[in-house]
Amino acid sequence: MKQLINVPETVVADALRGMAAAHPELTVDVSARLVVRRDAPVAGKVGLVSGGGSGHEPLHGGFVGPGMLDAACPGEVFTSPVPDQMVKAAAAVDGGAGVLFVVKNYTGDVLNFDMAAELAEDEGVQVAKVLVADDVAVVDSTFTAGRRGTGGTLFVEKIAGAAADEGAPLDRVAWIARKVADSCRSFGVALTACTTPAKGSPTFDLPDGELELGIGIHGEPGRERRGMMTAREIADATVDALLTDLQPTAPVLLLVNGMGGTPLLELYGFNAEVRRALDARGVVVARTLVGNYVTSLDMAGASVTFCQADEELLRLWDAPVRTAALRWGV
Amino acid sequence: MKQLINVPETVVADALRGMAAAHPELTVDVSARLVVRRDAPVAGKVGLVSGGGSGHEPLHGGFVGPGMLDAACPGEVFTSPVPDQMVKAAAAVDGGAGVLFVVKNYTGDVLNFDMAAELAEDEGVQVAKVLVADDVAVVDSTFTAGRRGTGGTLFVEKIAGAAADEGAPLDRVAWIARKVADSCRSFGVALTACTTPAKGSPTFDLPDGELELGIGIHGEPGRERRGMMTAREIADATVDALLTDLQPTAPVLLLVNGMGGTPLLELYGFNAEVRRALDARGVVVARTLVGNYVTSLDMAGASVTFCQADEELLRLWDAPVRTAALRWGV
Repeated sequence: MKQLINVPETVVADALRGMAAAHPELTVDVSARLVVRRDAPVAGKVGLVSGGGSGHEPLHGGFVGPGMLDAACPGEVFTSPVPDQMVKAAAAVDGGAGVLFVVKNYTGDVLNFDMAAELAEDEGVQVAKVLVADDVAVVDSTFTAGRRGTGGTLFVEKIAGAAADEGAPLDRVAWIARKVADSCRSFGVALTACTTPAKGSPTFDLPDGELELGIGIHGEPGRERRGMMTAREIADATVDALLTDLQPTAPVLLLVNGMGGTPLLELYGFNAEVRRALDARGVVVARTLVGNYVTSLDMAGASVTFCQADEELLRLWDAPVRTAALRWGV
Repeated sequence: MKQLINVPETVVADALRGMAAAHPELTVDVSARLVVRRDAPVAGKVGLVSGGGSGHEPLHGGFVGPGMLDAACPGEVFTSPVPDQMVKAAAAVDGGAGVLFVVKNYTGDVLNFDMAAELAEDEGVQVAKVLVADDVAVVDSTFTAGRRGTGGTLFVEKIAGAAADEGAPLDRVAWIARKVADSCRSFGVALTACTTPAKGSPTFDLPDGELELGIGIHGEPGRERRGMMTAREIADATVDALLTDLQPTAPVLLLVNGMGGTPLLELYGFNAEVRRALDARGVVVARTLVGNYVTSLDMAGASVTFCQADEELLRLWDAPVRTAALRWGV
């Protein structure tokens, strides 16, 4: 597989230099591996910090800005960032009201954010954490004890970010973040494997004529291999997997997410089938987002996430946001 | 190549159903193949209509909304829309001030928009046209007499859309659109071929270890095949090709555009190298956009477009826009 890179060793640093060049509204520290909103810390506002392995862009750096994250800590590709990044991020965004860590449920991320929370508290920053574990496909996986954190992260970061923007205190922001995390469910499908820069070839073998249902965002094994299916069949299988886990009792926010290598033309077609499947099962969709948001490098495929949203979550979802990848109302 | 579709014959209709489901702010007519802003026609405002073959999403449907296009006419994949679509679009968006057709320079598109302009004028709609032919790679190509129209289209649609939003009359909007088209230059690089739904396999052969400089957005031949290059080498070759054609004398708006299959992580790294190359050659970048905007299905690769922008074009670029794919200031 050919890649538009210099050498594998500098992929993350090169991308951060490119982010810095494109986004003057961000402070990008290439050597410390930090993406911070330029006006941080915002006095009196709870700071939101997230991070994780690179390769899932625009998550998380593309979600830094007013109404969403205050800082992101990118690790190497598919590798957790280190506690030092998170401690620096916490210090950079603490406006005196404390900091919320948004953590996807992968063993390395959880350990490192835990350690960082202790270190940051030692330095006088009040820290709360929320764990995102929304992927219904499998329990326990290659890098995870429990469920994996995937597309639900976007909803947690957006909605908790809006609550922080409104001036909610740390315990309230954390409470809302946990409520969103509890209200999200995701399921992904891979048509091809992804190629990491270090390996330079597909990270697993997915033969022509087969797909994998329940794939993880690092290519972790899903539930089953199947012969190739139509968009309609994939949508039905995906929606069934989601609703078997949680049948929404309120309208949902819907994310039809590309894994990186699937054209937007196909994603919109898939959204039509996902909506048909949800309609047929009595699920009301309040808002829809279609595009590449939580990716797996160049993997072809898609994931579906819903977030069951009461009036308050819907209002916070609609609140203004101004980041590189998500932007409305401002 | 595996695709997330039902059958090739319904790919465009399926995508339009998915757009309709995701974007209640648009009127999507699936059978007539039209994407129109819901509040069209806007009384007294010049209407902007564009269109072209599908497979380049978010272009053009993703650019319909306040501050940009009033309507888009999607053809079949890599196939011009027909005059009937354009005439219907013109009628739907004419608020009494006339309509501007934004036409990418491909033979089919040019002929069909010409015919549509005559038909629309017969129906009493005043029509002006702007031709976008910004790709410096080759003169005359598979589907083109003269230069191909590619990434510059985004700048034409955004900036002319802002002028129309400000209430400029048709001759003025057309004048600005032509000025933007004249100020844009593009150059693209393919690492892989794209796969059309109808063919189901790569549309041309690009061996491992080779890339193609100067590729078109339908995979039309470029300038040359080369052994694989680093992002830095590709950026230098691209920027040299652009500046040999036009050395900007004003700051530029920069688009570092993914062809569909290249991860955002790589695109940001490429942006770092493009910026380095421009800096080294004395070109000042005023604004940067990095992402998949004018794509070629699942092709891996990228294109670079710059638009030389005086104070007025910069002001119109910064003006509010609210579409599915481009959104700021509102």
